[in-house]
Amino acid sequence: MELHRQEASLKNDTLLRALRREPTPYTPIWLMRQAGRYLPEYNATRARAGSFLALAKSPALATEVTLQPLQRFPLDAAILFSDILTIPDAMGLGLRFAEGEGPRFERPLRDEQSIRALAAPDPALELGYVLDAVREIRRALAGSVPLIGFAGSPFTLACYMIEGGGSDDWRTVKALRHSRPELLHAILEVNARAVSDYLKAQVEAGAQAVMLFDTWGGTLAYEDYEPFSLAYSRKILQSGLGAPTILFTKGGHPWLAAMMASGCDAVGLDWTADAREARRLAAGRVALQGNLDPATLFAAPESVRAAARRTVDAFGPQPGHIFNLGHGILPATPLDSVSALVDEVRAYSRQLRA
Amino acid sequence: MELHRQEASLKNDTLLRALRREPTPYTPIWLMRQAGRYLPEYNATRARAGSFLALAKSPALATEVTLQPLQRFPLDAAILFSDILTIPDAMGLGLRFAEGEGPRFERPLRDEQSIRALAAPDPALELGYVLDAVREIRRALAGSVPLIGFAGSPFTLACYMIEGGGSDDWRTVKALRHSRPELLHAILEVNARAVSDYLKAQVEAGAQAVMLFDTWGGTLAYEDYEPFSLAYSRKILQSGLGAPTILFTKGGHPWLAAMMASGCDAVGLDWTADAREARRLAAGRVALQGNLDPATLFAAPESVRAAARRTVDAFGPQPGHIFNLGHGILPATPLDSVSALVDEVRAYSRQLRA
Repeated sequence: MELHRQEASLKNDTLLRALRREPTPYTPIWLMRQAGRYLPEYNATRARAGSFLALAKSPALATEVTLQPLQRFPLDAAILFSDILTIPDAMGLGLRFAEGEGPRFERPLRDEQSIRALAAPDPALELGYVLDAVREIRRALAGSVPLIGFAGSPFTLACYMIEGGGSDDWRTVKALRHSRPELLHAILEVNARAVSDYLKAQVEAGAQAVMLFDTWGGTLAYEDYEPFSLAYSRKILQSGLGAPTILFTKGGHPWLAAMMASGCDAVGLDWTADAREARRLAAGRVALQGNLDPATLFAAPESVRAAARRTVDAFGPQPGHIFNLGHGILPATPLDSVSALVDEVRAYSRQLRA
Repeated sequence: MELHRQEASLKNDTLLRALRREPTPYTPIWLMRQAGRYLPEYNATRARAGSFLALAKSPALATEVTLQPLQRFPLDAAILFSDILTIPDAMGLGLRFAEGEGPRFERPLRDEQSIRALAAPDPALELGYVLDAVREIRRALAGSVPLIGFAGSPFTLACYMIEGGGSDDWRTVKALRHSRPELLHAILEVNARAVSDYLKAQVEAGAQAVMLFDTWGGTLAYEDYEPFSLAYSRKILQSGLGAPTILFTKGGHPWLAAMMASGCDAVGLDWTADAREARRLAAGRVALQGNLDPATLFAAPESVRAAARRTVDAFGPQPGHIFNLGHGILPATPLDSVSALVDEVRAYSRQLRA
């Protein structure tokens, strides 16, 4: 409990300072899914592990891939390598990854009985491999940069738990929301408790900030986002996690003001969000993270640098901006572009502040 | 040229009146992709045609499927059955549909030479089958409801023309935008001329309103939507098409005010848009179309009716609302839900106005 609270021992605390809207010498940067398939060394470790789940469930291998992007690029944070679906897997839904198909649950929630039987897992007992990874990564980082923990939001977890896998339209989820909303609320209630317990355990194990990924909240109808997604994220954010929090909703533009008032320390923006308007709305009360389109990295490095400068300019020089992509970095992203991006954000933002 | 301008001869002119923000006895309703795979009779006709393209290219079969949803549901408009990619097909890119794969171009735009060689097709010569379908549908409708023509927006067409097919991230398009923006502008310029000519020809052939589908404009970065999508849609909307216009951008929430000032008569909203805020922004200057989540139709009919009432309430009783889904109706949508939706919108909105 002592180690991870000693920020003074961090060699690079720019991320944590930016989360507190304190001045930093440059804009800190990390990349969603920075330990991912665009890295040849990640693919090699994954091949060695045999499967994505074997990789995610091995603390040693999760540590190895968490550190890989930091060895290549001067990023300002590490993010735990794991999967957002570890919680429903621990609930007994049976997670598997078919090659090239994305996640599938063997036992999705398809009747009232299975929904009423849901219970929040005890992280120490059922998600110990994740907490072991957090501890091992903290040791390996040796105070170089902070470690970000994460979880999927209650609604985003519910999407997969109900649908049984990914979907273009989440028709089963939406049908349940309209036909039996009380059952969707029952799932979300359990998920909120589970995510809160899980993030607290990650912080106790050493995570120095946590991010809540509401990947699918932005697919809800305008009036449904607040009652079916944000209300449950808010419970988690206000449950005393013990570390600064980042709330990200892909496509969250219509609800930015409400997200900012949710109790989080920072709001993550995708690339369709207006950074200047978001800064105005935030009014210095929360930090902002984002928001370069990950597809930009397929342009030539000089064009990537120009786009990075425009993004830094859009957020402006005031404290409280964490540079990131607007969503996860894409497979096959050229490494030269990533290098150019990280270098330009560092150099350009440092120069702006000078 | 006379027939289609005689609205007085229309038995049901609620759509055209709503587009002019004039009072109507109830809220008119039609559904994006209403002639589609959720209808068994559509699937039968498509099977008879042999392929999607054969169906789209036969005026007789296009007329048959355009009319099918109207025979089943009391909808307030017909929409031309066609494909948004007829223009790039006529430009010589070689459209084909592989079964279960979506559209592919045999010759996507992959070098400067092919981009510089692009030319807007002459609709009368190269898209005559569409204009024949418009004329045949108008005859078959016999003044029952108006016929809506349509086209993809210049940016949406460019997405497929550059990428060669659908994409989750449009990485080739985004790379071109950043590395060679002048080439993307060159494509958009030709597309804008082509779409304008095409929609004018549809109106001359009998379309009584036209809709511009900017399906992918909402995937652009905040600052890129205006210069790379809306600027070219605006040219079309302000080119004197001769019929009222509807502009739809999926995920267009961040740019609604600019869309409303584009010269269109109505803005189409997806289900993440705040209908009340959109009404306030529109201030009676443009009509609004939308915005029920198509996945809602997978709920029980009574729940669909409740959701329909909430949507009618959100837009309020003032004139200028056209009920629609927030995107195309999904394959496998239950027919009972569609019946319930159309019936409820008609009955509930009529009662509100009484």
